[in-house]
Amino acid sequence: MRTIRKAPEMQAEALRLRREGKRIGFVPTMGYLHEGHLSLLREARKRADALVVSIFVNPAQFGPAEDLSSYPRDLERDLAMCAAAGADIVFAPADGEIYPPGYSTYVVEERLSRGLCGASRPGHFRGVATVVAKLFNLVLPEVAVFGSKDYQQARVIERMARDLNFPVEILVAPTVRETDGLAMSSRNKYLSPQQPAQALCLFRALEKAREMTGGGERSLEKIVAAMKTLIEAEPEARLDYIEARDAANLEPMTVLDRPTVIALAVFIGSVRLIDNAVLAP
Amino acid sequence: MRTIRKAPEMQAEALRLRREGKRIGFVPTMGYLHEGHLSLLREARKRADALVVSIFVNPAQFGPAEDLSSYPRDLERDLAMCAAAGADIVFAPADGEIYPPGYSTYVVEERLSRGLCGASRPGHFRGVATVVAKLFNLVLPEVAVFGSKDYQQARVIERMARDLNFPVEILVAPTVRETDGLAMSSRNKYLSPQQPAQALCLFRALEKAREMTGGGERSLEKIVAAMKTLIEAEPEARLDYIEARDAANLEPMTVLDRPTVIALAVFIGSVRLIDNAVLAP
Repeated sequence: MRTIRKAPEMQAEALRLRREGKRIGFVPTMGYLHEGHLSLLREARKRADALVVSIFVNPAQFGPAEDLSSYPRDLERDLAMCAAAGADIVFAPADGEIYPPGYSTYVVEERLSRGLCGASRPGHFRGVATVVAKLFNLVLPEVAVFGSKDYQQARVIERMARDLNFPVEILVAPTVRETDGLAMSSRNKYLSPQQPAQALCLFRALEKAREMTGGGERSLEKIVAAMKTLIEAEPEARLDYIEARDAANLEPMTVLDRPTVIALAVFIGSVRLIDNAVLAP
Repeated sequence: MRTIRKAPEMQAEALRLRREGKRIGFVPTMGYLHEGHLSLLREARKRADALVVSIFVNPAQFGPAEDLSSYPRDLERDLAMCAAAGADIVFAPADGEIYPPGYSTYVVEERLSRGLCGASRPGHFRGVATVVAKLFNLVLPEVAVFGSKDYQQARVIERMARDLNFPVEILVAPTVRETDGLAMSSRNKYLSPQQPAQALCLFRALEKAREMTGGGERSLEKIVAAMKTLIEAEPEARLDYIEARDAANLEPMTVLDRPTVIALAVFIGSVRLIDNAVLAP
């Protein structure tokens, strides 16, 4: 496995691989890898001749009051995990490689990125869409794999790739969970020893939604209200949002008459966690 | 020469050419070709195994009060000219191919696109950057050629390509002029029989600037003032802007102490024409 630090070197290597007829699979990450990332690496590995993983904590997707500086980092551990998962190249650029002085171009998705995390984190999806577009041009993948935990992000990236005609197949893989149901996230590391138990309220709220749906409930307002009650009963939890949206176009929904994503963001202490479930009518 | 109407077909053909190791040269146009475009085709032809020309009047770069509907079109004539200039493929998509229903992603350049035409035409460069990014992904060129008449556009595209890491070399070719000096433009067709003579005031103003510079004048304010006087003396001309900017980063300039572009936009009747010259200190 090779580690590349420079953007031009990454692109030259990608062009070389493509000239050789190699199919490049790509998993962009912010590092501090966990089993969720590894499941994406495995999906990409199956579909590609060369597997590229990027590790870059993207400043453009963090707000000024967010956790950019404290975001967990452990490059050595990440490199070992990538090697074990069969990565051929890890692209781990410095900030200045990605946003050089005078940088002034951004990619904005104006529909799916509204609301949900887009409302709580202004500019977040602009940063995500921009860095993914850049990474696509540097890595030149034929297939790129993203996780479902960031449901809105996956939809924004699919739309961006389609709208800008990137010749990249976007694959979205299921969320990986701890045995108790907690969605894996690099931010789980921030949780104090007691907080993972409290963080389970996200999963329990989603289970509650599934249970109500299974029992025939079709009012998304009732389902969301019941979820809110459950979150609010957890003393350390502070709700950011719970919303029901059309699973495809993210339009707000009130009645479960087509596939619907229930997405939520909850602060456990100062740690903001997200999760989601897709409900079928 | 092959004419392609569908975006997926264009991309499949581009991928096929690249797999064969062909170097793709690209000239994006809005059609109604003139000698200026043909000079770009010749530059691209020299540098490529396969020459792709796009013909697409891009609605995203026109304001609501602008000349989108009346923009001159003559596809048959354009195709004949492309064939004669040695194009291999003309990509002439319908609007719906480029902006399908639900389209929601844009590329914005936030620095070089401010001021000049960006001030007169809000959203114009967002439309330009977006369509060029899309066309780069559909045509997958190694080299793309743009004209110098749209000086700010050329700089915005260079920056966009660099910032988003497109693996495309951007070449900017000189403005082609009529023998009297009028810069060639598809919009010259709008001019009434008397107006081309009036439109010459743009070129004469640039000549005046060169003459003053040649005589030792270094005050860009004086140079711009003399150009304004000249434009205002033309009864049919209405000045949109004349400005002196750093030729590289488009920052406003007052003293000619480094390469400076003098760019101007002038309405001749209802026809808005642009031109520019780069002055060396």
